[in-house]
Amino acid sequence: MTLPSDQQYWNQQSWVESANDPAVGFSLQSLPLCSFVPPDSADGASHLGVGIGEFVLDLHSLSSKGYFSRLGPDVEAALLAPQLNPLMRCGYGAWGPRRLMLSMDLLKGIDSRGRSELEPHLVPQRDVRFCSPFAVGNYTDFYSSIHHAENVGRLFRPDQSLLPNYKWVPVGYHGRASSLVISGTGIRRPSGQFRPPGQDAPEFKPTTQLDYELEVGAYIGVGNALGEPIPIDGIAAGVLGAESRIFGLSLLNDWSARDIQAWEYQPLGPFLGKSFATSVSPWVVTMDALDPYRVPLNPRTAADPKPLPYLAEPAWMERKSGFEIKLEVHLSTTQMRASSMAPVRLSRGNLRELYWSFGQMIAHHTSNGCNLVEGDLIASGTVSGPRDGSQGCLLEITRRGASPIRLPTGEVRAFLEDGDEVILTGFCERDGFPRISLGECRGTILPGAGPI
Amino acid sequence: MTLPSDQQYWNQQSWVESANDPAVGFSLQSLPLCSFVPPDSADGASHLGVGIGEFVLDLHSLSSKGYFSRLGPDVEAALLAPQLNPLMRCGYGAWGPRRLMLSMDLLKGIDSRGRSELEPHLVPQRDVRFCSPFAVGNYTDFYSSIHHAENVGRLFRPDQSLLPNYKWVPVGYHGRASSLVISGTGIRRPSGQFRPPGQDAPEFKPTTQLDYELEVGAYIGVGNALGEPIPIDGIAAGVLGAESRIFGLSLLNDWSARDIQAWEYQPLGPFLGKSFATSVSPWVVTMDALDPYRVPLNPRTAADPKPLPYLAEPAWMERKSGFEIKLEVHLSTTQMRASSMAPVRLSRGNLRELYWSFGQMIAHHTSNGCNLVEGDLIASGTVSGPRDGSQGCLLEITRRGASPIRLPTGEVRAFLEDGDEVILTGFCERDGFPRISLGECRGTILPGAGPI
Repeated sequence: MTLPSDQQYWNQQSWVESANDPAVGFSLQSLPLCSFVPPDSADGASHLGVGIGEFVLDLHSLSSKGYFSRLGPDVEAALLAPQLNPLMRCGYGAWGPRRLMLSMDLLKGIDSRGRSELEPHLVPQRDVRFCSPFAVGNYTDFYSSIHHAENVGRLFRPDQSLLPNYKWVPVGYHGRASSLVISGTGIRRPSGQFRPPGQDAPEFKPTTQLDYELEVGAYIGVGNALGEPIPIDGIAAGVLGAESRIFGLSLLNDWSARDIQAWEYQPLGPFLGKSFATSVSPWVVTMDALDPYRVPLNPRTAADPKPLPYLAEPAWMERKSGFEIKLEVHLSTTQMRASSMAPVRLSRGNLRELYWSFGQMIAHHTSNGCNLVEGDLIASGTVSGPRDGSQGCLLEITRRGASPIRLPTGEVRAFLEDGDEVILTGFCERDGFPRISLGECRGTILPGAGPI
Repeated sequence: MTLPSDQQYWNQQSWVESANDPAVGFSLQSLPLCSFVPPDSADGASHLGVGIGEFVLDLHSLSSKGYFSRLGPDVEAALLAPQLNPLMRCGYGAWGPRRLMLSMDLLKGIDSRGRSELEPHLVPQRDVRFCSPFAVGNYTDFYSSIHHAENVGRLFRPDQSLLPNYKWVPVGYHGRASSLVISGTGIRRPSGQFRPPGQDAPEFKPTTQLDYELEVGAYIGVGNALGEPIPIDGIAAGVLGAESRIFGLSLLNDWSARDIQAWEYQPLGPFLGKSFATSVSPWVVTMDALDPYRVPLNPRTAADPKPLPYLAEPAWMERKSGFEIKLEVHLSTTQMRASSMAPVRLSRGNLRELYWSFGQMIAHHTSNGCNLVEGDLIASGTVSGPRDGSQGCLLEITRRGASPIRLPTGEVRAFLEDGDEVILTGFCERDGFPRISLGECRGTILPGAGPI
């Protein structure tokens, strides 16, 4: 079941007035999902919710009133769960009808039954505590921004900024699933082993090169059996293709300790420089909401090698395998907050600047038979653009600290200091279509715990 | 609660006669845990079990008869679960009493009550199908054998076989948890992207360099909260120390496609060259069973740098942070099976040849605050010794195929062929102590699935 994609659909408005305010970014056409604890919760259990305007619609309380009974007992039970995994296990076919029911009943002027049924289950977003939307079994981080790869490569290998495999392989690695945290969780400055400049022997102490990475994560809605790769072109193969396995997108901050990472990463890749925490935003924006913002990816040129057949998107797919999502990083220091200054924007990038699409990442990930599981998280890697001001981490912006930035307070930053809050935002906007917000992904640096 | 560690304890025998046969290796003092489906199962559900002689003692059916009621409802319920995770969540204190109860009742000549209670719940091991003993949330693979690191380094970097960080950092990376499989599962030859020799452009096809890796895995029984590192010396810190967090050890085969791995691994480490499958053995041998086999690790010399304080074992710990476990790899080809030939031994190593202990791996892993979760799996990395005949993978034995081995059938192997079965075994033996088997970890190579 698909939603009508004509202009009339995208112009429809909701009786929830704040949903029609583009500045809010949670329109009738967006309806992102989340997990949250209601303010009046007796047991502190988290509920599934849908964002609409300035509210969360409580799916748990709606389901317990029988609202979703038409969708069968499995979906009804899945919507009572604290996270989205059980809904995914109901299958691809369960996603659309649920969305359509809510869309109809949130629509302005159809009838008053929907409003009377839904309105009691709206909770102001500002009153809730968000939780992780998925129990993530496996988290994979890619490296799909060629601008990021080139900028970082230039710092470490001036003679060969891009490795020979980059334009052939969607490079990725397994991240740490256990240390994924929800936006708003404080980030303790990690200690670790690294070599201070000019020293031969390493030391163990709190990182002095703490960084963020601006990324977008894709949650897997439909997995695959071990040994059964997912083809990039599902239509040609008669199965659900790679990108269609994605339930939705979120913002993700892959916090990184650059000194720890630099010392540890050879030969097996990043480990403790990353695994102390990875933050995700509360909202999962489903793929249908992003439909008007599909574009071709930017960076690939005719001079680049053609992807091998298992990664080759047919022309119709290539025209829309990227997403025009504006991504921003904002920083707020303790001093800025003390002076009631607004956070300062450090960069603005765009998800369409990736070299590899999410479909290509998933086709590659499973090409050896590796199984993806519902709720698995696939991240883009740092999203950087080609221009100054579009780089997604401090490592690139300050050239590993060599060119620190000056903030409006006069403060200087090579890397993050204790008390700094990093705020990632993402949104889509286009004339004639609703503005779609991905919400925020926040984290404040807490002082290190000192020696063990 | 601890078990008596005097000689009398280690000499005690069981009324299960095959438990007293050293060749079997499942003595009264071993009692490894597993998950299995009984032969007469109506629902196909897996039960927890304990190995004793040639039998599995069915903990599920014992618990449902009330045998464990003295240990409280949590432990009783945990022993009805299909895997060991719930038992871990009952806490460290729940492990010992369960073991002690079984030990007492399996002991020869104490009284006949134990025998009459337990005997109906013994199932011959040959009749059961084993399942994964833990639901593994996070799987980390280390690189703790210095001999392996040197042998592999020599193949890829003749001028610098050991990287500068090796003797300071227990190098590791996040592995793929979803593709862990139980011993006996067929291993489909993965396809992947790699550059055939002499070519500039890569191709996508079935790997031609399929390899095994002989490893030992440690299951985490007690995790830590995010942000709270686990100290190596728990006694000094007044908490449960790093190695004490381990519930038990198993054999592990980290199947590797060397051509895929070589092309993909820079700069983020191994990914699809490993993630198609990792096999684990059915048995989890708990740490108390291994007590007589504790030894100092071999390779560290006085010339090596002293570990940084967070990795430094006090002298009493250093004397016993290694394990004298003999590890062997056997190969059986289709042709060998057709001629009823026994598998041929490819190598014999010893777990004490590691440079880093499991305690050091865990202290390092959590030193940045990364949280371990009950059921997480920490693997040693390929266990290789310093001598020919003790290398734990074909990459080392055949020098990446340059020196293929000749089998008794006249067959030649540079890497694994379809139909080859790899059998890892592990055991401890010492005069005056029971022989402890880690069982077997088997896998047979199935032909590749062909193009996607």
